[in-house]
Amino acid sequence: MAKKRKNAISPTRAEDYPEWYQQVIKAADLAEVSPVRGCMVIKPWGYSLWENMQRELDQMFKATGHENAYFPLFIPKSFLEKEAEHVEGFAKECAVVTHHRLEAGPDGGLEPAGKLEEPLVVRPTSETIIGSMYSKWIQSYRDLPVKINQWCNVVRWEMRTRLFLRTAEFLWQEGHTAHATKQEALDETRQMLDVYADFAENYMAMPVIQGEKTAAERFPGAVSTLTIEAMMQDRKALQAGTSHFLGQNFSQAQQIAFQDQNGEQQFAWTTSWGVSTRLIGALLMVHSDDDGLILPPRLAPKHVVILPIFRDDDERTEVLNYCDELRQQLSAQHYAGQPVQVLLDDRDLRGGEKNWHHVKRGVPIRVEVGPRDMAANQVFVSQRTTGKIGGIARTEFVETIADRLDAIQNGLFQQALELREQNTHPIDSLDDFRDFFTESTQSTTEPQGGFALCHFDDESALEPLLKELKVTIRCIPLESEEEPGTCIMTGKPSSRRAVFGKSY
Amino acid sequence: MAKKRKNAISPTRAEDYPEWYQQVIKAADLAEVSPVRGCMVIKPWGYSLWENMQRELDQMFKATGHENAYFPLFIPKSFLEKEAEHVEGFAKECAVVTHHRLEAGPDGGLEPAGKLEEPLVVRPTSETIIGSMYSKWIQSYRDLPVKINQWCNVVRWEMRTRLFLRTAEFLWQEGHTAHATKQEALDETRQMLDVYADFAENYMAMPVIQGEKTAAERFPGAVSTLTIEAMMQDRKALQAGTSHFLGQNFSQAQQIAFQDQNGEQQFAWTTSWGVSTRLIGALLMVHSDDDGLILPPRLAPKHVVILPIFRDDDERTEVLNYCDELRQQLSAQHYAGQPVQVLLDDRDLRGGEKNWHHVKRGVPIRVEVGPRDMAANQVFVSQRTTGKIGGIARTEFVETIADRLDAIQNGLFQQALELREQNTHPIDSLDDFRDFFTESTQSTTEPQGGFALCHFDDESALEPLLKELKVTIRCIPLESEEEPGTCIMTGKPSSRRAVFGKSY
Repeated sequence: MAKKRKNAISPTRAEDYPEWYQQVIKAADLAEVSPVRGCMVIKPWGYSLWENMQRELDQMFKATGHENAYFPLFIPKSFLEKEAEHVEGFAKECAVVTHHRLEAGPDGGLEPAGKLEEPLVVRPTSETIIGSMYSKWIQSYRDLPVKINQWCNVVRWEMRTRLFLRTAEFLWQEGHTAHATKQEALDETRQMLDVYADFAENYMAMPVIQGEKTAAERFPGAVSTLTIEAMMQDRKALQAGTSHFLGQNFSQAQQIAFQDQNGEQQFAWTTSWGVSTRLIGALLMVHSDDDGLILPPRLAPKHVVILPIFRDDDERTEVLNYCDELRQQLSAQHYAGQPVQVLLDDRDLRGGEKNWHHVKRGVPIRVEVGPRDMAANQVFVSQRTTGKIGGIARTEFVETIADRLDAIQNGLFQQALELREQNTHPIDSLDDFRDFFTESTQSTTEPQGGFALCHFDDESALEPLLKELKVTIRCIPLESEEEPGTCIMTGKPSSRRAVFGKSY
Repeated sequence: MAKKRKNAISPTRAEDYPEWYQQVIKAADLAEVSPVRGCMVIKPWGYSLWENMQRELDQMFKATGHENAYFPLFIPKSFLEKEAEHVEGFAKECAVVTHHRLEAGPDGGLEPAGKLEEPLVVRPTSETIIGSMYSKWIQSYRDLPVKINQWCNVVRWEMRTRLFLRTAEFLWQEGHTAHATKQEALDETRQMLDVYADFAENYMAMPVIQGEKTAAERFPGAVSTLTIEAMMQDRKALQAGTSHFLGQNFSQAQQIAFQDQNGEQQFAWTTSWGVSTRLIGALLMVHSDDDGLILPPRLAPKHVVILPIFRDDDERTEVLNYCDELRQQLSAQHYAGQPVQVLLDDRDLRGGEKNWHHVKRGVPIRVEVGPRDMAANQVFVSQRTTGKIGGIARTEFVETIADRLDAIQNGLFQQALELREQNTHPIDSLDDFRDFFTESTQSTTEPQGGFALCHFDDESALEPLLKELKVTIRCIPLESEEEPGTCIMTGKPSSRRAVFGKSY
């Protein structure tokens, strides 16, 4: 039996943030670890969140001229070996297929048999296999640009996994484009970062900093990697999406060449970009509280849950009829171009237990309807973000549902933005930098943790310090203004600040 | 340069049906073989067809109370071993992961390293891994039913592959449900077969026979397998979808047990059902002709292509403006609940080449618009199925577009139904059976090939004959009436005819 507790999630964020994260996933029934090492099971509530993310992103990709296609799960070992940095980046953690059947062994069990001539790697990312197809498809400038996206699963053999944030198998999309000119490829790289930022801010209600990764943090094989970085509630950074300008590195390694308008052979300029189910982890960590998941209305699988309240069978019929009518009226409304998603929860459960079920799963609006509400032709409204609102006339509630959802969506964004702004600080000396990133039990008026905006000159000179403090350079923001300064480590001049932070 | 030829596809269906199939795929740009043995690349036009299939099926699954989720790609070897028939059916052709990284070997190349304690199999189907989760989730009758579907990739190491029809990796959906009673699981098995039949007939315009597989043709581990069987234009059968009643076989093997309302432990009753990208091959073989792909409007990625015709830049501007207006008007119309999908092909290509491009890709309606059409305020209409229609007043064409598409959809279904009916025959003697399935160059008035409806008693007695003729029992139709007869082989009494045919 569920009693109403102070908080639904134990431990709280303040008590143990990493454990709170796991408990929110469990309470919201988003996902579970599976018996296969490092692989997760995404449960229906979590998967419907991914479906909503896919739907919006897919529309954005298509609106920017991309088509979907599907390429093989397996990559021959020799393909991976073609680009030196790329194989270096991925060979250490990949699933290797070496046999193509199981046969009865001497001990009665089954053993791998039918050894492959060349081992296959389960794709950790598909630049090489997709590039091999592009090298066939692209012969002339008339064949360009090629702008293809793939929704699929990928595998990277992670040793320390955490649901959604780092798993051996995860779901993602990977865009792969080829262009005739460098500028076109650079524009594409930037455009897709804008798409990701738009999605993060306007759908996930998660403010992001758009920036460029430093050399040490680049995608293996890329000329430059653009990123969107978000701040979680523990003030750590999370890389939420990346867009890579690959230059001609992969086109040269894979002979993606074309005849230009002057009849000359040129290598294509390629890009790749991706976001993954990691976004679900980010969404959770940005918005949720000590009562569980909080979902931004634009991605919530259900916007409103109706909770009928009654004492006996007579009341039951009347209340359920009223609720069903309410459900239909709400479902006829639209929010952000989609019909409002309404769940009438008529399960035979105690009111308190039922209520907490939906609180923990992050449904934006809960509506209780009992005989007294019916008599007053009103509904009793609670919002996941702001708690109890009270009685609202039924007609008014139905007619303003989209505005109410919009206000919740905007409120979530503002809250996350404020957290980031309060915890982002320019830092100009090595001592302050060290203090900022050193956990202290002393009460202090100095800012601590979060994003440090610092001048730096030489990444390698900073490396020992960053390693010691477990800090990384998140990105050099694209939007930042030039500002002369000096590197906190070397004292050499620098023209722009980078974002430093601890990260997931 | 493309000249207008008699047929776009060479060879024709009559000349070489299997090769015609490959050439239609190539001409429509649906898919290609990849450098990874047995794996295909699904190209954008083919993938958009799959997206449309997914969209419709997914709605049907949700409307029947199913939710989507995602389970691991990998299955531990020991899981596969739990159900004896199941492992027997899948162990012989599976991709086995044995290592989790690549390391530099003595010859400079990379070699598999980090051997796994237990090999993992890339899922050929997910009964075992999903069942292992269900055994945790299901404890009480209150947890039932569980009705989950998964969209994913699967791998079966096929030695002889053919695009879409049989590939090592393919995309599919697999539904997995668990129920408290046998009847509920039987009802579910049948319901999902109905969903598949509905989809095949009303979206793919492909008539199907719903039936039950005989013991020899069942899914490994199933108690019974229901199937939808369609006739291709070469009169061969294609199994287009299956729905399995698994009884308690998997629940016993995996301990999917629950406490019933009387407090007693029971094993759950489970089902599984799936359709795959094979449907794209079926769609192609049922409808296409010697000019290439033909798409039923309900699944066509584009319904109408507008082909502007002009001689010079002045005409160009005027015609393109007119065409763009037409595109907007058509796009504002709805067909089968979706906006009409219109492509304005303004590429700088010869008219003939452009026209054939869309013929081969199966766009249902092509509309040519030149200065003379504009002057008469008409459009020149051709239908992929029926050829040139001629000039139609623009307003009339726009207003009746949905009816036109509907007529095409229905025409395709009728044509396929007629082919099947003309080639389905009751056969009552062994000699007639042998003649029916033996290819003959003699002109004969006897029916030949197709579906034979025959009485049979003992499947094993028939086996040598079927093997010799390369014929299989496709199914025992669910809808057929009881009819006393005698087995064509043993002469023993039989109460119902089965469908026999050669198959894919």
